[in-house]
Amino acid sequence: MAVYTDVTADELQAYLADYDLGSLLSCKGIAEGVENSNFLLHTSRGHYILTLYEKRVAEADLPFFIGLMEHLAARGLTCPQPVKSRAGQALGRIAGRPCAIVTFLDGMWLRRPGVAHCHALGGALAALHLAGRDFPMERRNSLSVDGWRPLFEAAEARADEVTPGLADAVETALAALEGGWPDGLPRGVIHADLFPDNVFFLGDKVSGLIDFYFACTDTLAYDVAICLNAWCFEPDGAYNVTKGRALLDGYGKVRPLSRDESAALPVLCRGAALRFLLTRLYDWFAVPAGALVRRKDPLEYYRKLRFHQTIGGARDYGIDAA
Amino acid sequence: MAVYTDVTADELQAYLADYDLGSLLSCKGIAEGVENSNFLLHTSRGHYILTLYEKRVAEADLPFFIGLMEHLAARGLTCPQPVKSRAGQALGRIAGRPCAIVTFLDGMWLRRPGVAHCHALGGALAALHLAGRDFPMERRNSLSVDGWRPLFEAAEARADEVTPGLADAVETALAALEGGWPDGLPRGVIHADLFPDNVFFLGDKVSGLIDFYFACTDTLAYDVAICLNAWCFEPDGAYNVTKGRALLDGYGKVRPLSRDESAALPVLCRGAALRFLLTRLYDWFAVPAGALVRRKDPLEYYRKLRFHQTIGGARDYGIDAA
Repeated sequence: MAVYTDVTADELQAYLADYDLGSLLSCKGIAEGVENSNFLLHTSRGHYILTLYEKRVAEADLPFFIGLMEHLAARGLTCPQPVKSRAGQALGRIAGRPCAIVTFLDGMWLRRPGVAHCHALGGALAALHLAGRDFPMERRNSLSVDGWRPLFEAAEARADEVTPGLADAVETALAALEGGWPDGLPRGVIHADLFPDNVFFLGDKVSGLIDFYFACTDTLAYDVAICLNAWCFEPDGAYNVTKGRALLDGYGKVRPLSRDESAALPVLCRGAALRFLLTRLYDWFAVPAGALVRRKDPLEYYRKLRFHQTIGGARDYGIDAA
Repeated sequence: MAVYTDVTADELQAYLADYDLGSLLSCKGIAEGVENSNFLLHTSRGHYILTLYEKRVAEADLPFFIGLMEHLAARGLTCPQPVKSRAGQALGRIAGRPCAIVTFLDGMWLRRPGVAHCHALGGALAALHLAGRDFPMERRNSLSVDGWRPLFEAAEARADEVTPGLADAVETALAALEGGWPDGLPRGVIHADLFPDNVFFLGDKVSGLIDFYFACTDTLAYDVAICLNAWCFEPDGAYNVTKGRALLDGYGKVRPLSRDESAALPVLCRGAALRFLLTRLYDWFAVPAGALVRRKDPLEYYRKLRFHQTIGGARDYGIDAA
């Protein structure tokens, strides 16, 4: 549920005067995304999404995100396409907040994605990686291995309140990852947050990818690991190898993983699980229990981390022998 | 911000199979209304609103609300028009909740309505009263004078926590209203909650009235009093007689108030102010401070009540001498 900043009809009408979007017919706050305020605009030209960037998105990063969406859309990826003002600007400002208007994408995100959806998701992720290859801008991943220890230190003292022994388990996993994080695998633009709520489907087909506000330049196979974590576990905590195989197969058909990338999947999956465990743990203590934002359970990712620590090798994810 | 119940693509697709609305393209939770969950649907036939009725709306009242919207829409009032299934049903059930699909209305509600908007609102309210004249169903107003004492009794013990002396002031006002509530004025369908967020505008024209879930059979001029309270006070608490005159003039041009109705405006305005003061006071203590619903300030309506207690007569609202 994300509408943190209210927008008046007058403000919006004045803002749209700089765009070729026709007259404003409707604007409704929508419950989508958790970092920003999003509004569905109806103008005499069509339907659009207006995003007001709230404090958690660094303004200096916006040109990267906007530029990336333009780049990907120009290469045929169905992602929100920034709409430019008559002066050629995609970024503006409403109610004191940086903002952008993007095209509206049809489709719905799936609460319970199935095997076919995981296959389609894999293909869409690989297509994103290929489309991003020649994107000229760079953005460091502040939530990769270097960023984890500061998050842990902020939450360490209270971690065992969530479950006994958590602090020690995280310390051990973190130290191992810091010592053995893969280096030299193919890099490029990654989405870094491609959870089911950021992927729209029409039937079994991906109709759009949204929310590029964690996108950055990092190891491509790490994005695969994030998706294995986000898409292939069942509500009871079990890894669904059929979904994993489908995701990896869908990915590999568009962009085959190298032998090194496949071999690195277990450590990348542990890293991805730890990254979401740590941000959720941090938020758990930073966000008051009664706040307007629902906190996500850190333990879900602790259980995933433990699964990744016990597997025999990449083949256990369902990948074909390389 | 109102999405209390989540709806999956599968559930929705199954539900829509009973309707002639084409295929489902998109469904987004919207931040509109506080009592129910609302979703904006895009289907191959157009845009619609899906409402899931939450616990505060009595299921037995739904046929009245749905029937009223159909009745008003058939008489040319721009309000949401219920969409019927192929079996002729406007009410259904999704995720265990009663629900209805209605047409989407363009327009935006105004955070700061001006004089011209108050004039237009008055005309729209009168048009609603006229269009509702031959609506055959009845619904008692549970939030009229008979319903106020139970609300007060539930909050009385803690009322002075909101401001010292509030309990005594409410008791005095309530007793006076119980003793002198107007009887015999013209009755019919009233909206009973026509606040600015329930009225859409395109420019200075009313483009739609929404949220009929407090509508009932009651004194028509009481609806006028509710609107004077909701539309004609400034943020600093002052009554804006220019807006009041515009609202009353707009109303009177479509449905002239009788001499008795005009004369009753002060007591009806005190009643309307007390009604919102009491429901806000009740919610103030019933809703935990940190809950996902923002509480509305009861004192805003206490200040309005005191204004209505000090005026000389109906003419102070800006009404032309009858």
